Amino acid sequence: MRELGIGLIGTGFMGRAHALAFHNAKAVFDFPLNLTLAALADADPQRARQCAQSWGFATAHSDWQQLIDDPKVNLIAITTPNHLHFPMAMAALAAGKPVYCEKPLAVSLEQAEQMQQAAKAAGVVTRVGYNYQHNPIIQLARDMIQRGELGRIISFQGEFSEDFMADPTSPWSWRCEAAHAGGALADLGSHLLAMARHLLGNVEAVCADSQTVHNQRPASAGNPEQRAIVVDDQVHALLRFTNGARGTVSSSWLKHGYKNHLSFEISGTLGTLAFDQERLNELRLCRIGQPGFQRLLAGPDLPGYAAFSPAAGHQLGYNELKTLEVQELLMALAGQGGSGTDFAEAWEVERLAAAIRVAAREQRWVKISE
Amino acid sequence: MRELGIGLIGTGFMGRAHALAFHNAKAVFDFPLNLTLAALADADPQRARQCAQSWGFATAHSDWQQLIDDPKVNLIAITTPNHLHFPMAMAALAAGKPVYCEKPLAVSLEQAEQMQQAAKAAGVVTRVGYNYQHNPIIQLARDMIQRGELGRIISFQGEFSEDFMADPTSPWSWRCEAAHAGGALADLGSHLLAMARHLLGNVEAVCADSQTVHNQRPASAGNPEQRAIVVDDQVHALLRFTNGARGTVSSSWLKHGYKNHLSFEISGTLGTLAFDQERLNELRLCRIGQPGFQRLLAGPDLPGYAAFSPAAGHQLGYNELKTLEVQELLMALAGQGGSGTDFAEAWEVERLAAAIRVAAREQRWVKISE
Amino acid sequence: MRELGIGLIGTGFMGRAHALAFHNAKAVFDFPLNLTLAALADADPQRARQCAQSWGFATAHSDWQQLIDDPKVNLIAITTPNHLHFPMAMAALAAGKPVYCEKPLAVSLEQAEQMQQAAKAAGVVTRVGYNYQHNPIIQLARDMIQRGELGRIISFQGEFSEDFMADPTSPWSWRCEAAHAGGALADLGSHLLAMARHLLGNVEAVCADSQTVHNQRPASAGNPEQRAIVVDDQVHALLRFTNGARGTVSSSWLKHGYKNHLSFEISGTLGTLAFDQERLNELRLCRIGQPGFQRLLAGPDLPGYAAFSPAAGHQLGYNELKTLEVQELLMALAGQGGSGTDFAEAWEVERLAAAIRVAAREQRWVKISE
Amino acid sequence: MRELGIGLIGTGFMGRAHALAFHNAKAVFDFPLNLTLAALADADPQRARQCAQSWGFATAHSDWQQLIDDPKVNLIAITTPNHLHFPMAMAALAAGKPVYCEKPLAVSLEQAEQMQQAAKAAGVVTRVGYNYQHNPIIQLARDMIQRGELGRIISFQGEFSEDFMADPTSPWSWRCEAAHAGGALADLGSHLLAMARHLLGNVEAVCADSQTVHNQRPASAGNPEQRAIVVDDQVHALLRFTNGARGTVSSSWLKHGYKNHLSFEISGTLGTLAFDQERLNELRLCRIGQPGFQRLLAGPDLPGYAAFSPAAGHQLGYNELKTLEVQELLMALAGQGGSGTDFAEAWEVERLAAAIRVAAREQRWVKISE
Repeated sequence: MRELGIGLIGTGFMGRAHALAFHNAKAVFDFPLNLTLAALADADPQRARQCAQSWGFATAHSDWQQLIDDPKVNLIAITTPNHLHFPMAMAALAAGKPVYCEKPLAVSLEQAEQMQQAAKAAGVVTRVGYNYQHNPIIQLARDMIQRGELGRIISFQGEFSEDFMADPTSPWSWRCEAAHAGGALADLGSHLLAMARHLLGNVEAVCADSQTVHNQRPASAGNPEQRAIVVDDQVHALLRFTNGARGTVSSSWLKHGYKNHLSFEISGTLGTLAFDQERLNELRLCRIGQPGFQRLLAGPDLPGYAAFSPAAGHQLGYNELKTLEVQELLMALAGQGGSGTDFAEAWEVERLAAAIRVAAREQRWVKISE
Repeated sequence: MRELGIGLIGTGFMGRAHALAFHNAKAVFDFPLNLTLAALADADPQRARQCAQSWGFATAHSDWQQLIDDPKVNLIAITTPNHLHFPMAMAALAAGKPVYCEKPLAVSLEQAEQMQQAAKAAGVVTRVGYNYQHNPIIQLARDMIQRGELGRIISFQGEFSEDFMADPTSPWSWRCEAAHAGGALADLGSHLLAMARHLLGNVEAVCADSQTVHNQRPASAGNPEQRAIVVDDQVHALLRFTNGARGTVSSSWLKHGYKNHLSFEISGTLGTLAFDQERLNELRLCRIGQPGFQRLLAGPDLPGYAAFSPAAGHQLGYNELKTLEVQELLMALAGQGGSGTDFAEAWEVERLAAAIRVAAREQRWVKISE
Repeated sequence: MRELGIGLIGTGFMGRAHALAFHNAKAVFDFPLNLTLAALADADPQRARQCAQSWGFATAHSDWQQLIDDPKVNLIAITTPNHLHFPMAMAALAAGKPVYCEKPLAVSLEQAEQMQQAAKAAGVVTRVGYNYQHNPIIQLARDMIQRGELGRIISFQGEFSEDFMADPTSPWSWRCEAAHAGGALADLGSHLLAMARHLLGNVEAVCADSQTVHNQRPASAGNPEQRAIVVDDQVHALLRFTNGARGTVSSSWLKHGYKNHLSFEISGTLGTLAFDQERLNELRLCRIGQPGFQRLLAGPDLPGYAAFSPAAGHQLGYNELKTLEVQELLMALAGQGGSGTDFAEAWEVERLAAAIRVAAREQRWVKISE
Repeated sequence: MRELGIGLIGTGFMGRAHALAFHNAKAVFDFPLNLTLAALADADPQRARQCAQSWGFATAHSDWQQLIDDPKVNLIAITTPNHLHFPMAMAALAAGKPVYCEKPLAVSLEQAEQMQQAAKAAGVVTRVGYNYQHNPIIQLARDMIQRGELGRIISFQGEFSEDFMADPTSPWSWRCEAAHAGGALADLGSHLLAMARHLLGNVEAVCADSQTVHNQRPASAGNPEQRAIVVDDQVHALLRFTNGARGTVSSSWLKHGYKNHLSFEISGTLGTLAFDQERLNELRLCRIGQPGFQRLLAGPDLPGYAAFSPAAGHQLGYNELKTLEVQELLMALAGQGGSGTDFAEAWEVERLAAAIRVAAREQRWVKISE
């Protein structure tokens, strides 16, 4: 059985989420691969060592290039701040190694394009961490759409809103910098755009309106110094999908009451389905002829769920979605299919977000192919 | 006390709804007016007589012009098919009589403009039946917005969807004709636009996308003959409000699972509120600092509710909203305020819908003032 | 067509609700009766006259016996405080006139029994105002149960809770006196018991636990004087139905968050249905084989709804339920069926409540037939 | 740092859940213990080896007694069928080793009593897997109750219903045998009773009604042979808590529409809170003076949640609750507190369930101390 040594860069929340996901995927799923946690990198050597030890990695590096070069490492997982995705992924691809990069792919469309071209040239498996798509109930939604159970799809209405910047005294952070892929559209909206594409396919044209509501924020918590903010606090857009469906997307990080409101309603000629990430184990569905929506609760009839529990209602959480993402990645590395967002698809998401930005700035419809 | 003789034209569902509303308003509220049900008109003389008798009207007419000319009639209520609103309202205004006309004001923007000018010239009270606005809990929402409880309003996301045309074999009806103010935008969307204006005021510019999904329908139920359909089945739009808020509106009569889904979420810097006409006695509200939405159930703290019940949770229905609309109309006739949609405001709603149509047709942002 | 003169006693909220219901029933339904609002009685002659005028009654009485004796009056509607139900209804029955009495039937089981015997002896139509049962969606639930759509019924879990006494400084009122049918069980729970019987039939035995949480309350708002309270603030009970179903009922007027939470879940071998009076136009239903509950929203497929609106989602409110109750009463008076709670059935409800009281006091199972 | 070698018996779904929980607890939390996965036992030696390898255990045993005797093993985790809990736990206690046993503690009250006495005599840490209690939002509920935020608690209304036996052709299984702790009360209800005790403390007396609805079931799927069933399909009970609160509990495995409906409403003089395991990241709360319930979504303000995610709305699932249970167990083993259900408390749960059985059989109130 082929050896697969995981090399993980980054030891924050997302680093640990990756570490757990690799371990749990190994315990839960069967792969024709001998998975090992080969190496962990963090700029702080002590933290690298400590986390390696407690998460079960064999070696620790303080230089990420060394991790990439480590011959025991066959897959590079990147969980560092957004602006580091580009150099790390490019280096990994240059070394001919598969890459699993957290979202967003990059902090500019130019970088994203280079990355997807480099991935294509390297011919290796790539994945970007849009893990919400790996929810088994989202997989069910997608299957239903593709099997035609909702008929011809005519509308997608999506929203991803949270409230974490709603307080105007919430301080500036890197999320407020366009150069770090900040702003509500890049930070939240990209998840929604990725989901829309995942479910309905290509978008042809967009029109949009975006707004910076709070033009300045404290430089840090309680700091009287204010920093100017130019990234968007909210965006609304119209979408025309290639399949003929039309839709709206909205994203805001100022919306009181929402914590993780990645939601959508998809209307087809034979039914409507609705989802909200705040209740990620549920789908609401109304088929033609039914009097109203019914609630579907994730259960073991969904393969991704059955892997974790034999009983409906036990509920999956965020970490299981990550484990399922890793499972698909590993299947791809084993040459056995494996769905997920590769660099080419992640670049499409970036391109769509960029078109929305142009449409908002120029107040006109923009074709994605422009 | 001044006599006020009601003259009602039309004996359909809406005619009866008006008749009940006038009676119930008299029983429930105090007015400085001596309200009488003076005359009822229907083209069918027998039906006119029968309904007059069972609804309590003093006289019956088969010619609506006679009703308008009847000296005992001081207010003309119009509940006939849409294309008759114009001639009847114009005749009533020519006679110098106040008019209470069902929505939509007219079947074309030109008619609507003439009607609002005639109303202005006549100097009489006019009202158009956008009765959803008279829901006490909507009044509460509006008061909260106007008192600044939600802070600066930044977003309005509205939808009015139903499923009554979702079946492609649902036959053609007058609602499928533009010349009768048909189509999802005119039939449903206008309620939503009226609500958006009621709550947030003027809209400055719109961009939109609309679609006819089913291009033909049976001429009548089960009829093999098909009629071509050109009115919109669904519309999505972006709105820019004069107060700076941005938003989306969607309307569809093809959306499985919804019966009366006139809904909105309004996001402000100090809170979010949400409403759905399918649960018309409820408002969901999250104020800054609160962990999540709380449900408000209409109760006697709301004056319009207290008029009907001393206890929360008893619930108002459609007919009470109509009674409340009539109450406001009667207050206006008594010269004591009285909110509601007059012809000038109803024309603004029509103008906004017309701008959305232009924006959809020409695929560009349209200023309302164009 | 036979004349039917309505004589109404009481001019409070419930008196007006009756007045509106009689008027609206006449306008909305066809009856083989010539309904007139014949007389209104209130101890205060001026109020009697005023209300008669504004509600459309032909005469006013300040002595209720005179109203009963009035030859123009053929039906006695009683909306006075609970302790007056007995003398008024007995006088009406003595005069051989049909009676429509607000709930509860009486303030003691002994009175209730006398009333039902007098009704039986008089052989006239009687009705008690358990109007929640006349909700068309409750009628649907009952029909489904009776047609066997839920299979064999195995469980009823019901609750009627509100919060109007939850504040311990809410003052004493007549509702705190057992002699006026006060306490959570009599005031709220009786609605729930009536509903349970309406849907599932006879109860055979009960066991119960009740509690007075706040043993004293201010004599009036803000009054430092305290009155001792002995009626129950909450009650929980087990029920064994004659049809073999088992269940629980709970009632409290101390439960924060609820305004009119008359709710139940009925479980059968073929399905589960759930209802909450706070959303009175909805039923939640899960049939065998379905993955979860679906929501049914009242619409014109339900006859009682269709009478008021041709479109689903318009929603009925409290007043329509009252109108529907009156319609059934009028059908009964016309000798054409007419469902509803008569004095015999209302006595059964009282008997069931009394058994619950005994069971709670003696801490044992009590057979209703004891 | 002290070594702690985990010995796990059983390789089913629950065995794997334990294996993952130990690993993830080690990665997520800091303990003053050096945790190792020392040994795994399964009667099938090949399966034992395979699972040990893929879950990361150092050794595999096919004889559970050998695992208990293994000197590298310092904690015995038992995830075998219910009837094996007793011999395994007794052997572990005899060896003086701490025990972590899945629920139920035993298949008879007598066994449970012996086990809790043996645990007391051994003086070691014991835990039983009532992992729903380790939900951070349940911890919040408990803290709120204990801090008095809901005032004096007056009512607990709980239910644990599922639908997995609702189909009468669902075959017999060990869950249908009393000797394996089968029946709705033992299988589901015990979780609810444990939760009620966790939140409100001791119960003093119960009255109950239980029922076997389907008296026979196929011996296996599709098998024409029927087996007689005597365990309960549903149970309803009244509870009197020592703290004065009263309540109801219901449990059914025949209730269509529910998958994991472990739910409760707790009413206090200062507020009401409600929970449903089918939405395990949510609590609904209404405090005195608030107009209605508000939804709390688990977030990083709850320590148990913060361990897994820095952002609200990410959601925990079943496996995180298990990890949190293990974390508390490990804290207890480290002598640093550590909440959870020990054998003494689990015996109290069994004793309460047994009292409910007696109350149902004898149709009378039963004191727990009887």
